[in-house]
Amino acid sequence: MVQTIDSYKVSFIGAGNVAWHLAQALEYAGHVVQEVYSRNLMHAQQLAAKLYHAVPTNSLDFSKSKANVFIIAISDDGLAGVNEQIILPEGSIIVHTSGTMPVETLVGRPNSGVFYPLQTFSKIKKVDVQCVPFCIEATNETTEDVLIALAQSISNTVYLISSAERKILHIAAVFACNFTNHLLALAKEIVDREELEFDLLKPLIQETFHKALAANDPVSVQTGPAARNDQKVIQSQQDYLTPFPDEQKIYKMLTESIIRKAAE
Amino acid sequence: MVQTIDSYKVSFIGAGNVAWHLAQALEYAGHVVQEVYSRNLMHAQQLAAKLYHAVPTNSLDFSKSKANVFIIAISDDGLAGVNEQIILPEGSIIVHTSGTMPVETLVGRPNSGVFYPLQTFSKIKKVDVQCVPFCIEATNETTEDVLIALAQSISNTVYLISSAERKILHIAAVFACNFTNHLLALAKEIVDREELEFDLLKPLIQETFHKALAANDPVSVQTGPAARNDQKVIQSQQDYLTPFPDEQKIYKMLTESIIRKAAE
Repeated sequence: MVQTIDSYKVSFIGAGNVAWHLAQALEYAGHVVQEVYSRNLMHAQQLAAKLYHAVPTNSLDFSKSKANVFIIAISDDGLAGVNEQIILPEGSIIVHTSGTMPVETLVGRPNSGVFYPLQTFSKIKKVDVQCVPFCIEATNETTEDVLIALAQSISNTVYLISSAERKILHIAAVFACNFTNHLLALAKEIVDREELEFDLLKPLIQETFHKALAANDPVSVQTGPAARNDQKVIQSQQDYLTPFPDEQKIYKMLTESIIRKAAE
Repeated sequence: MVQTIDSYKVSFIGAGNVAWHLAQALEYAGHVVQEVYSRNLMHAQQLAAKLYHAVPTNSLDFSKSKANVFIIAISDDGLAGVNEQIILPEGSIIVHTSGTMPVETLVGRPNSGVFYPLQTFSKIKKVDVQCVPFCIEATNETTEDVLIALAQSISNTVYLISSAERKILHIAAVFACNFTNHLLALAKEIVDREELEFDLLKPLIQETFHKALAANDPVSVQTGPAARNDQKVIQSQQDYLTPFPDEQKIYKMLTESIIRKAAE
């Protein structure tokens, strides 16, 4: 059986990491990217060069565009200002890709929405977009249908998520990703200081994350001195960290938090 | 070319997670486990049943044992006391497997050492011991040679690590593993409260760790509101966490630490 999908004409406002991956994934799924906008025309050209016949531009006047979906993929700060300046063809849909901004940021757009890929992107690293969860929100049902179809054409996991829920997901993502990465950075700082190899820790890091994800409940696989409330080890490790007050404060706070959670 | 290895006779004091995996890996590599000790004879029997002809025991008198290497794999707290009680055959080697205890904990043992696998073990989950880094330390050269040979027969990465270095590695491991797991637990708590699926965060978690390990330098791939010093998002996320003071305190402290590190 051949499965047909609706093919959409899409334009990107922004040519950064998110646009980079989404634009290529959408074309791979049979959609056509019409324009790529960036303030810096060279950036727009770089992404357009990766696409079939997308036109790079540094103008926000899309009144002549054939696109029916406009995807803004720029920083949160610029969002409201850029939305104000964009001139759209009538009846088109406009979305942003932010984890934190409410859909209402797209003031004055009757067919607007959010098309938020819950993933961290960098240009130099391939991402399997099929595995990226997309959080969809729309201001009306027709727009919602289009955004769901568009997301489902490139990803296996598409969720309808309200602005309030998306905000909470983003906070959880900060804990699960930004903060965990920072702890890995601190671990590296600790071994670097003594000229020990970070490589030594890698199998342990991998196993920790596999276990937490496989268990589907990280608290059930918590190990270490805090989980055992092993005060002798805790005290000795805290003492060692005295010359590094930032690390020591974090050590104390997370240890106390683990002990509290274990006692719940 | 057939590679031959020295075959050692090994006994385990302890039948927990570490003994469970090491004993089986050593037999698979051609060594022979003679005895498995546990205070609780049933635990010793359970592990012995996984081995060729190991004898389960709850006695610490090994004076008649044919083993030449004794591996203590019990909790840190019990180590000194158990070492005091063990009766060994003359000339044999005794080691512990602890990340935190100095080699000197094995008081009165001329041929002693540390055989520390830098990994988190649980009985229910297979671990590829070949990929586990082993940290070796010994009180004399002959013992060191035996422990290195033993470790290399089951693992690709064997390091000579002093007690002081091992202590630091263990602290780094607490940051990289126990603390990161706790942050994943908090992330789950945050999404659970709103009945959002933890699954939504999994691809992001996987990507974060792949990236940090591939970059070999987590600080270079740090992302998120703190890394951008995006005070609007930071303030809004902190405000959201006001009813959850434990999470809010951790959020503030780690955010400040990321900002400080980015400014270095």
